[in-house]
Amino acid sequence: MSLNSFGHLFRVTTWGESHGPALGAVVDGCPPGVALAAGDIQPWLDRRRPGQSRFTTQRQEADAVEILSGTYEGRTTGTPIQLLIRNLDPRSKDYATIADRFRPGHADLTYHLKYGLRDPRGGGRSSARETAARVAAGGVARAVLAALLPGLAIAGAMVQMGADAVDPARRDAAEVARNPFWCPDAVAAGRWAAALDALRRAGDSVGAIVEVVATGVPPGLGAPVYGKLDADLAGAMMSINAVKGVEIGAGMAAAALRGSENADEMRMGAAGPEFLSNHAGGILGGISTGQPVVVRMAVKPTSSIMTPRQGLTVAGEEVAVTTRGRHDPCVGIRAVPVAEAMMACVLLDHLLLHRGQTGGGVLGRIGG
Amino acid sequence: MSLNSFGHLFRVTTWGESHGPALGAVVDGCPPGVALAAGDIQPWLDRRRPGQSRFTTQRQEADAVEILSGTYEGRTTGTPIQLLIRNLDPRSKDYATIADRFRPGHADLTYHLKYGLRDPRGGGRSSARETAARVAAGGVARAVLAALLPGLAIAGAMVQMGADAVDPARRDAAEVARNPFWCPDAVAAGRWAAALDALRRAGDSVGAIVEVVATGVPPGLGAPVYGKLDADLAGAMMSINAVKGVEIGAGMAAAALRGSENADEMRMGAAGPEFLSNHAGGILGGISTGQPVVVRMAVKPTSSIMTPRQGLTVAGEEVAVTTRGRHDPCVGIRAVPVAEAMMACVLLDHLLLHRGQTGGGVLGRIGG
Amino acid sequence: MSLNSFGHLFRVTTWGESHGPALGAVVDGCPPGVALAAGDIQPWLDRRRPGQSRFTTQRQEADAVEILSGTYEGRTTGTPIQLLIRNLDPRSKDYATIADRFRPGHADLTYHLKYGLRDPRGGGRSSARETAARVAAGGVARAVLAALLPGLAIAGAMVQMGADAVDPARRDAAEVARNPFWCPDAVAAGRWAAALDALRRAGDSVGAIVEVVATGVPPGLGAPVYGKLDADLAGAMMSINAVKGVEIGAGMAAAALRGSENADEMRMGAAGPEFLSNHAGGILGGISTGQPVVVRMAVKPTSSIMTPRQGLTVAGEEVAVTTRGRHDPCVGIRAVPVAEAMMACVLLDHLLLHRGQTGGGVLGRIGG
Amino acid sequence: MSLNSFGHLFRVTTWGESHGPALGAVVDGCPPGVALAAGDIQPWLDRRRPGQSRFTTQRQEADAVEILSGTYEGRTTGTPIQLLIRNLDPRSKDYATIADRFRPGHADLTYHLKYGLRDPRGGGRSSARETAARVAAGGVARAVLAALLPGLAIAGAMVQMGADAVDPARRDAAEVARNPFWCPDAVAAGRWAAALDALRRAGDSVGAIVEVVATGVPPGLGAPVYGKLDADLAGAMMSINAVKGVEIGAGMAAAALRGSENADEMRMGAAGPEFLSNHAGGILGGISTGQPVVVRMAVKPTSSIMTPRQGLTVAGEEVAVTTRGRHDPCVGIRAVPVAEAMMACVLLDHLLLHRGQTGGGVLGRIGG
Repeated sequence: MSLNSFGHLFRVTTWGESHGPALGAVVDGCPPGVALAAGDIQPWLDRRRPGQSRFTTQRQEADAVEILSGTYEGRTTGTPIQLLIRNLDPRSKDYATIADRFRPGHADLTYHLKYGLRDPRGGGRSSARETAARVAAGGVARAVLAALLPGLAIAGAMVQMGADAVDPARRDAAEVARNPFWCPDAVAAGRWAAALDALRRAGDSVGAIVEVVATGVPPGLGAPVYGKLDADLAGAMMSINAVKGVEIGAGMAAAALRGSENADEMRMGAAGPEFLSNHAGGILGGISTGQPVVVRMAVKPTSSIMTPRQGLTVAGEEVAVTTRGRHDPCVGIRAVPVAEAMMACVLLDHLLLHRGQTGGGVLGRIGG
Repeated sequence: MSLNSFGHLFRVTTWGESHGPALGAVVDGCPPGVALAAGDIQPWLDRRRPGQSRFTTQRQEADAVEILSGTYEGRTTGTPIQLLIRNLDPRSKDYATIADRFRPGHADLTYHLKYGLRDPRGGGRSSARETAARVAAGGVARAVLAALLPGLAIAGAMVQMGADAVDPARRDAAEVARNPFWCPDAVAAGRWAAALDALRRAGDSVGAIVEVVATGVPPGLGAPVYGKLDADLAGAMMSINAVKGVEIGAGMAAAALRGSENADEMRMGAAGPEFLSNHAGGILGGISTGQPVVVRMAVKPTSSIMTPRQGLTVAGEEVAVTTRGRHDPCVGIRAVPVAEAMMACVLLDHLLLHRGQTGGGVLGRIGG
Repeated sequence: MSLNSFGHLFRVTTWGESHGPALGAVVDGCPPGVALAAGDIQPWLDRRRPGQSRFTTQRQEADAVEILSGTYEGRTTGTPIQLLIRNLDPRSKDYATIADRFRPGHADLTYHLKYGLRDPRGGGRSSARETAARVAAGGVARAVLAALLPGLAIAGAMVQMGADAVDPARRDAAEVARNPFWCPDAVAAGRWAAALDALRRAGDSVGAIVEVVATGVPPGLGAPVYGKLDADLAGAMMSINAVKGVEIGAGMAAAALRGSENADEMRMGAAGPEFLSNHAGGILGGISTGQPVVVRMAVKPTSSIMTPRQGLTVAGEEVAVTTRGRHDPCVGIRAVPVAEAMMACVLLDHLLLHRGQTGGGVLGRIGG
Repeated sequence: MSLNSFGHLFRVTTWGESHGPALGAVVDGCPPGVALAAGDIQPWLDRRRPGQSRFTTQRQEADAVEILSGTYEGRTTGTPIQLLIRNLDPRSKDYATIADRFRPGHADLTYHLKYGLRDPRGGGRSSARETAARVAAGGVARAVLAALLPGLAIAGAMVQMGADAVDPARRDAAEVARNPFWCPDAVAAGRWAAALDALRRAGDSVGAIVEVVATGVPPGLGAPVYGKLDADLAGAMMSINAVKGVEIGAGMAAAALRGSENADEMRMGAAGPEFLSNHAGGILGGISTGQPVVVRMAVKPTSSIMTPRQGLTVAGEEVAVTTRGRHDPCVGIRAVPVAEAMMACVLLDHLLLHRGQTGGGVLGRIGG
């Protein structure tokens, strides 16, 4: 991982600012011969697209993706795939007032300190709009995974908004697509709608916890000791805007467990080893076990709020900053498809790494 | 980051197994002209060394580091530094019984599935012993940081053992070195000693939360969007054995905050911008703010316990596994110097990246 | 270097096919604050642009570059710079006849064998058209170098066409821009014009030797032992289409020298060490000496010729292949600006690496 | 490639100085399950070992390799392999006289300028002794290639010493092992012996051309456009000490060819496509064709000679430098096994990359 690229063999480089003419991703190292058209990627972008409910930013962007290279007659050729998304609805004037000031909780200040200048329009490169490029790249990864690992499924959900978590007993995967929160608990979704309406009226925002689960992940993905699957997942998820914590399996709660509780016991199933629990989140020693890979991340509340907070001007004056523009009151919502995309990219990358080093498949047999 | 290397410009590659003749690290990209002898690295290794109290493994290893290359007349030359640590006290026979079986919670199974074979002695490459090489590399990073950023300090602590956390009101940095837990709260340390004695007698183990804080970090370290300082820290910390969660600043708790609570307000101090809080953990937009960089990680309980747990043999038979050998009842203790070392490596790496791209320093002025 | 990217810190990723909608480059790691507009890059592209004389392909491409990201108000921001060049004049029908056959000397065959499919239109990704993206990226590198190393100059020339070399006694740098061959010898340029006219009429093509010299390169760029400046230059130049050999300084002729002839003797000049000769081509031990960096490369004759040559069809039939389409009879001509661009990118990359590791400048003093 | 590492998936990091306690290589990314013991590597090191004839340096080094990690019960485990070679016969006092001066043609000067200090003993890191580590790593690559591609063979030879080349008509592969020059022409070997004796007496040295040919290379290794097989080979070979030029196939001579001569015509053979010539050196578009991969490199004459040459002292004084110590009068001889090792590493690396991206093998069929 370096600067604006991630991945080892399935390597994604994103570029673009919130209010420039376009943004996008170059996907390099993609396996050849995979069916891929813009229509295979667009549905994933549509999930992340703004303006789909009153709970996300009202910026209107079609987020239509164009494939400029790397395919021929509807299949990938193994050469770099340039994915381009035009910016259609920037309202840069909304940002004129912040060009000379630093908003609390924003990257305005750090970009200024580091680079000596910044593109203030919509947050420039630090805007969550960059995540559209991730989702597009994730769409390519999904198409390849569908070809190479047809049993794999990646499902994200928002499992907590503010301090209000879903009820594990009421989780229903089918519910996720039925509400604007990707919430697997219909009752919680109702509470969240009310709470978020109140927050918007108050000019405030709120954090969230997003969970992504990949099932059908074959054993053997990952490698000691800095190419661990969980290490790469942690880096990938922490690189998403506003993420402040990443957990694998039991996560932070593992600290409170005893060894006799935490270690996932095994039994021999018809198709191979099975586990009686999944505190490991599907990863042991940095390598996938075959169990579901479970990642959770905390998304901080949007810093762009109507409530005035004390910031600074370039001249060093203290100033109350109120962020106009159009913003998500709970950026965790749109982080769900982004986190899914990162999961897809990391898993495919490690699948390619695994077959590069070992030829692929499971080399060690258990049982007859 | 790929496989057994980490870092971009300050690049560390570790090698070695728990019971092989030696293990070590190659440190490449080190700045030249820095005073460095084995004696500068040894104190950090001594902090991680096993057998120092009844609360860590009783394996006796001097962990004496030898510098085989990269220095001349006591100074770094800019060429790769090979750090070698010999294994003196392996008791491989302790592991004869597990050569044909997979311990719950261990990497035994995943190494077998991925590679088709593994070194079972002491866990081979997946042993926490690998972290000695990290601490040695971190010692080099510390020596360079001392030369380049004399105001920087890195301090780790264990802030929770099992479900028992330190009392923020009683935290005292001076206390950390006075107890065998790196615990900043003397009262908690007393409770932990009693609890851990009971756990050892019960043949069980427990998890922990480790916190590392770096002060004196200059603004401007990190980069959008996959070279973020927090993304690299998350990957580095998650790559440490047994870590299941990583938090920056407010961490997972950020989910429960509102935007008006979370955004760290600013004021103009004598030396530049100051913040009224540090929910960001010293990082905004992936770039350091100048505030303390705060990272926490959850370390799962040691899986090697005397309590029998159900595992599998290579033949696929279910078997009750009891791990003999010598093990840490709370591996979080020795994770403290390891996490400090990773922090040192990541910060130095980003310092070098920053001066590579920008020339170094702070390019943007604030105020007169 | 991996697949479609090159460079360590100044990292260029190119994408695009000969007959797709566009091609381009993402330039990541660019220093911030450098004045950069499309007009700074366009002149370099214009030097490589086809159709400027009867001696290059008649394909009409404006090669107008658009900067889609990474600048704000005319200066680089340190974020990735997307350079886009549209393909305006593809004549894909010219290639219908070769979609099912492999041209001798072309990448058609190897792409087919490796990937199982290929974009046959104009050679797809293997087309020399990809080099437009390199020249655009080189234009960014030149702008940065102009800011950081104002004394640096990069000058390419074609010094041999076929077996006909320039006369060293008649070399005149000013002549290079005056003929369509970038030839520093006016008399040779005249001979080449006649020879190339004859070759075109004969439906044949010819090879060439291109030389690039960088003056004003500071000492200290490069690093042992795989990050050597000459190793990176060799890789960069060999990656250009049709290049079959790369030389530094005395090059292949160094084999015939004795040590007493080859070693460049030194004397103390007013500004530091000086050399009495430059067999080293400005590089010793992989690190620049301060002398001109001299690279030469052999460009093979264009394989796309009107003379029928025996190839194969996908069905395995032997077939006489004649390449229609529009092609350069001596692709070495247009390789000159491409080689200059690669030199610019490699030098800037090593300048950034050098200041990353050492802080920049010359650390060792000689004399008072 | 960065600093002291090379390779993408089969990644080699070398370390160590000429007169330090030891040197070595870490080989990361090695496929698991391959039979490997020190005895598999030692024969390759023995070919490079000094002191085997009067035509190489008289330094006595056993160059015995120790494997410190990465194998278990005689097979690779997929974890990093540390190869260690001790330095037994340094005579550092020979270098006392050059600690304060810069030898013409040596890296003394550039290391000093870049780093501000250097290890002058035996050239430190810039010594050709570093190539022992390459040969050891190449031994690992050879063992893996023998398992994965049993038909592959790599054969190096010295084909020119000074201006005296072998006679193509007299080349005999069996002759290479029968003379101290790895010369495939017995008559030339006789001439070279006489010439080199004279040069040694005269206190001088001479350059050479080394050729390495790999047969049995499957089609499909390499990738557009910066991960080209020839680009990586060029970088790898140019990184060897004293190399000043690298050629693939027809090499620099390709410049003098016409397209109708250069393009290798094809016919359909029993086992697939065949070529009527091999100007391409087995690589088209950066991807292997299945033909022999042919690389040549020019090695400059050893700069360490008894003939006084004008250098400088640290104080800036001009001084006649005569290099004592023990040196190769024609370093090209020992470059032969080094170049073979680099070929092995690059081919294996690209084999792993190829199966990572495509699954391996040949995806495109030709004929029925």
